[in-house]
Amino acid sequence: MSDAATLNRLFAGIETDLDVVDATFHQRATSGLDMLNTASAHVLKSPGKRLRTALTLLSGKLLTYQFEKLLPMSVAFEMVHLATLVHDDIIDHAMTRRGLPTVNARYGNGVAILLGDYLFARTAGLIADVEDFRVDRLFSETVASVCEGTILELLTARQGNISVENYIDRISRKTACLMSACCKGGAIVGGGSEAQIALLGQFGLDLGIAFQIIDDVLDYIGTEESIGKPAGNDLRQGLVTLPLIYALQQQQNGHTERVGQALDAETIPDDEVRDIVAWVAASPAIEEAMGLARQYSSRARALLLEFPSSPERDVLEQLVDFVVDRSR
Amino acid sequence: MSDAATLNRLFAGIETDLDVVDATFHQRATSGLDMLNTASAHVLKSPGKRLRTALTLLSGKLLTYQFEKLLPMSVAFEMVHLATLVHDDIIDHAMTRRGLPTVNARYGNGVAILLGDYLFARTAGLIADVEDFRVDRLFSETVASVCEGTILELLTARQGNISVENYIDRISRKTACLMSACCKGGAIVGGGSEAQIALLGQFGLDLGIAFQIIDDVLDYIGTEESIGKPAGNDLRQGLVTLPLIYALQQQQNGHTERVGQALDAETIPDDEVRDIVAWVAASPAIEEAMGLARQYSSRARALLLEFPSSPERDVLEQLVDFVVDRSR
Repeated sequence: MSDAATLNRLFAGIETDLDVVDATFHQRATSGLDMLNTASAHVLKSPGKRLRTALTLLSGKLLTYQFEKLLPMSVAFEMVHLATLVHDDIIDHAMTRRGLPTVNARYGNGVAILLGDYLFARTAGLIADVEDFRVDRLFSETVASVCEGTILELLTARQGNISVENYIDRISRKTACLMSACCKGGAIVGGGSEAQIALLGQFGLDLGIAFQIIDDVLDYIGTEESIGKPAGNDLRQGLVTLPLIYALQQQQNGHTERVGQALDAETIPDDEVRDIVAWVAASPAIEEAMGLARQYSSRARALLLEFPSSPERDVLEQLVDFVVDRSR
Repeated sequence: MSDAATLNRLFAGIETDLDVVDATFHQRATSGLDMLNTASAHVLKSPGKRLRTALTLLSGKLLTYQFEKLLPMSVAFEMVHLATLVHDDIIDHAMTRRGLPTVNARYGNGVAILLGDYLFARTAGLIADVEDFRVDRLFSETVASVCEGTILELLTARQGNISVENYIDRISRKTACLMSACCKGGAIVGGGSEAQIALLGQFGLDLGIAFQIIDDVLDYIGTEESIGKPAGNDLRQGLVTLPLIYALQQQQNGHTERVGQALDAETIPDDEVRDIVAWVAASPAIEEAMGLARQYSSRARALLLEFPSSPERDVLEQLVDFVVDRSR
């Protein structure tokens, strides 16, 4: 079954509410200014996997489902994710995302900075609509963490010798933290106990770490057709991820030095990227990285068992498997 | 009396609380990451006029003074102001601010984008501490408005023929809106009626418009010594402000064409900037712009009379006069 078909099947029970979130998202990203609308419409053209919204809604369903509060929260978390993507693309000098020109490529850095800021501002208004101060604080902590994760990414760029712990810390802050916030927020709004809120927060964090490791693996073993961008994109940008970290730890004949030279270069030649990617892809590093992802996904799955059996719990379990088994 | 001495005298009654706001500001701008702290310490080195905090506290004092709620709100509004300055400097390619290198000049655009985002995130947490959803919404609307104002600034850059209405709309959104929010927020927290909240919001808006007009006038008639940057800074960046708009409306022999050519050029030669600034400074446009600023400040002053006489109301009245009479 294709990834899209799997997700459609998994999300069948929340399909209607997912659509309401989408529609509200488009509506709330609208400004009185044409320029912002143009840039925002442009970025809304390429929708993501709706994974964050699904996590929020399904977490809420494990407890008391209050869609009127989950709605603004879901929109807020998707919007803050979009805002960080818009700003990331400026920082990375990225020219395309999901096959479309980035906002910075199309409208310049100024508009891209302001569109991101505008989306942040709108997000704060949505969070206010949840009318729960715990969600306000969760939101603030989450965005701060994403910024810190991105700074860590900048600081560790082109460093081949970063540790696995350092890598996990970075992706926890940058990616997993937001997924954790979706689940935690769903639990808060669902009237969960402190223990249940913490539990779903940990579930989201583990799931998010597994998700990002797989993303990073796919960047080594995926094809341009399957992942929508050429393989080796991370390496090309000097971003050192888990497969490369593991491969370098094996210290195979001369490769450490070769990768070090590539990372030191201002731009890595395409054939050098291809060669290093092929070396990593053929090495045991891929299976090792998959193994670590599975450790996190197993822990996430186990945490779910603390909740009574329900169709929503089943879907969350299958979602955990999907995150590790997907091909893009 | 110098500007600083005037402000010290005006703020004597709130001095202690202003210091607490400052200290909390420094504390809350702190991250677990050294890099963010370094950048943030750098930007905190050059404090502003504390005008926004003073407006917040004094507005609160007109009603019921609740410092424990005014404190996080004041810190939030100063912090959001700082965040927008950090991002503005990237957009404007500014290399110095208040005599110090900008964050983008010192640490690069990436860190500057992330520091601004980080400060935004922290702001949301501070606003949550106010525990009033009206303040949450006010905050969101205000930041969105500042973004829209900055986009308007980008869109109208290098256009000599913008109208006074367009200019007022732009500075209302970009600058005055935040001062309005400080006063409005002070009124909300102070337990003001809907009418009092609206009234102080309008007071802050009028005061903010007067403030920005004077800033723009000073950019034509100030000296580098008095305003901390060379005169003509706005023109150099292609930003068309009220003095130039009025001067161009007089359509003096050949100047319209000359200014048009200067604005069309990628960079305006220094002597051309000097000549145009001298022409505007010597023209009736300055007095005309000052006149419009006084219209707004008079209206702001008149609005204050809706509140009973008090030492705080006196200070706010004198603050209105200061905004128009200051030399930097």
